[in-house]
Amino acid sequence: MSNQRLFNVAVVGATGAVGEQILHLLESRNFPIKQLKLLSSARSAGKIITFKGQEHTVEEATPDSFKGIEIALFSAGGDVTKALAPHAVEHGAVCIDNTNAFRMDENTPLVVPEVNLEKISEHKGIIANPNCSTIQMVAALKPLQDRYGIARIIVSTYQAVSGAGSLAIDELLRQTTASLNGEEVNPAILPVGSLPVKHQIAFNAIPQIDKFQDNGYTLEEMKMVRETKKIMGDESIQVTATCVRIPVVYGHSESVYVELKNDYDLEEVKQLLADAPGVTLVDDPANQQYPLATEAAGKPDVFVGRLRRDLGFERGLNMWIVSDNLLKGAAWNAVQIAEHISKG
Amino acid sequence: MSNQRLFNVAVVGATGAVGEQILHLLESRNFPIKQLKLLSSARSAGKIITFKGQEHTVEEATPDSFKGIEIALFSAGGDVTKALAPHAVEHGAVCIDNTNAFRMDENTPLVVPEVNLEKISEHKGIIANPNCSTIQMVAALKPLQDRYGIARIIVSTYQAVSGAGSLAIDELLRQTTASLNGEEVNPAILPVGSLPVKHQIAFNAIPQIDKFQDNGYTLEEMKMVRETKKIMGDESIQVTATCVRIPVVYGHSESVYVELKNDYDLEEVKQLLADAPGVTLVDDPANQQYPLATEAAGKPDVFVGRLRRDLGFERGLNMWIVSDNLLKGAAWNAVQIAEHISKG
Repeated sequence: MSNQRLFNVAVVGATGAVGEQILHLLESRNFPIKQLKLLSSARSAGKIITFKGQEHTVEEATPDSFKGIEIALFSAGGDVTKALAPHAVEHGAVCIDNTNAFRMDENTPLVVPEVNLEKISEHKGIIANPNCSTIQMVAALKPLQDRYGIARIIVSTYQAVSGAGSLAIDELLRQTTASLNGEEVNPAILPVGSLPVKHQIAFNAIPQIDKFQDNGYTLEEMKMVRETKKIMGDESIQVTATCVRIPVVYGHSESVYVELKNDYDLEEVKQLLADAPGVTLVDDPANQQYPLATEAAGKPDVFVGRLRRDLGFERGLNMWIVSDNLLKGAAWNAVQIAEHISKG
Repeated sequence: MSNQRLFNVAVVGATGAVGEQILHLLESRNFPIKQLKLLSSARSAGKIITFKGQEHTVEEATPDSFKGIEIALFSAGGDVTKALAPHAVEHGAVCIDNTNAFRMDENTPLVVPEVNLEKISEHKGIIANPNCSTIQMVAALKPLQDRYGIARIIVSTYQAVSGAGSLAIDELLRQTTASLNGEEVNPAILPVGSLPVKHQIAFNAIPQIDKFQDNGYTLEEMKMVRETKKIMGDESIQVTATCVRIPVVYGHSESVYVELKNDYDLEEVKQLLADAPGVTLVDDPANQQYPLATEAAGKPDVFVGRLRRDLGFERGLNMWIVSDNLLKGAAWNAVQIAEHISKG
């Protein structure tokens, strides 16, 4: 397109696991970039990153970094977003934020393009990217909400360590090697880097992701509860979650039980999901085909399978939902939003 | 006890993963054995196993093996039980069967001692040991059923590979090593040895345990549905299950959502579980304490934690239940039953 508008784009947290994926996607999607600014903490500043054959030096993110920036993609932690996004907005940028900082702010749209694309236009400078485990679930549930209505969601997650950052990936691989060699695993990062107690993740399942809240739920679980209602635009949906870290590197899996408001036809559910944007149906028990984290890794889609009716409660439906937590769960959802903005 | 009655005991499947744990327990519990007979398939016959310092030669299990046997513990697969248990019964033995062969047979008690000990006396020669994932769940749910009544159970499991036998343990360790070395993992055993399609278990989550049934559920999932109702003695309990294999060697974890019939008090629930036989409460979010597979491995108890009320549905309760699938889930439950029989 000869008359395509080009944008000055900043990526904040360019050296992190999600930032890296954002850059891959901006490159492979041929995002209309005029000037690209790579920002990070002081610690990572000075690193060289090659984008479309050109070397870029990563700069320390400061309030002045956003002069002239039109689109800023943040994935450097909630504190960085809180400190810098308002400055970026002042400079006229639209911020797409992958942290928890503004997700539940009532003036900030929380967007999964397949679910509530129309909310993007309501932004006041910041658009929030939801939590990884929420994004893949609502993308798969949206067609069912539209067709039957959703009364209740009970979800148990099987989450990859990459969701806790690249140090957590290192930890899983290091612990696994130690365990195979009969050595001590010495947990250092998981479940939560900033908390005192650490647990082994190699050959284990840790039912804690993020900090505990006063109500006994973890923050990750409460994100799923609150964000689902906000994205679906329906506070009456009852959501309860159990979030668990397992020894997987890439790809979150979810066992989702959904109670629909109206009777459903299982074959119609399959067809709705097969036709849904961004969703791939993998549901062929006879041939042992169902979504798997190792198969979803590196792909943008949300994969859904193991669809079956609750044999006791007629309006109950079991689903198995898998997606790459760094892609649809983070970088890809953010770049989708950026693409919609770039198209005006 | 000088007048303690001693028994002629046979262990069928003595060389398997569960058989090995049964022998450890018979030894450490000082089970009143007069004569011990170790039986196996023809393939494993001739192996030498040391029990209480004495060497025993494993013999091939045949219909005649059970002459004089009073208690026979079976864990050599459903076909072996079907072929041989009736002969053992004819010879006067009480069979405690760890396979699926007779669990749903209406003349066979299905027993978890903490739940329905009284059913043992109804046996007609065979007492069935339930499926591993069912045992740990019902042991933890029994006090809640007695106090509040249970309307509905929605369970998602995180199951260890040892539940699929020692070849599956080898496969996980082999695949993990290959994956860490950047080599191909070449799945050969899981999810189901006898089915054509294999999937990687290293760094993955496989939502298939055992074969698919016509209704879209796996046999493992249907075991949880049917066995829970039979053990709890209440066909009205609605149960739905999603069973998932994860890269853990020992210890099944379960995310259990239970809808109680009556209002409950969360502190009372904790007290009921703390007081329940065979159950250990590990529920201290402030200190990041909850049940973990690596901690449960090698221990006989069922560990319960992450207890919290559904914030939407008042009578809903989330629980995290973990136990060693080879111990309470198999060998220990069987030996508990044997001990009750030995005490008359």
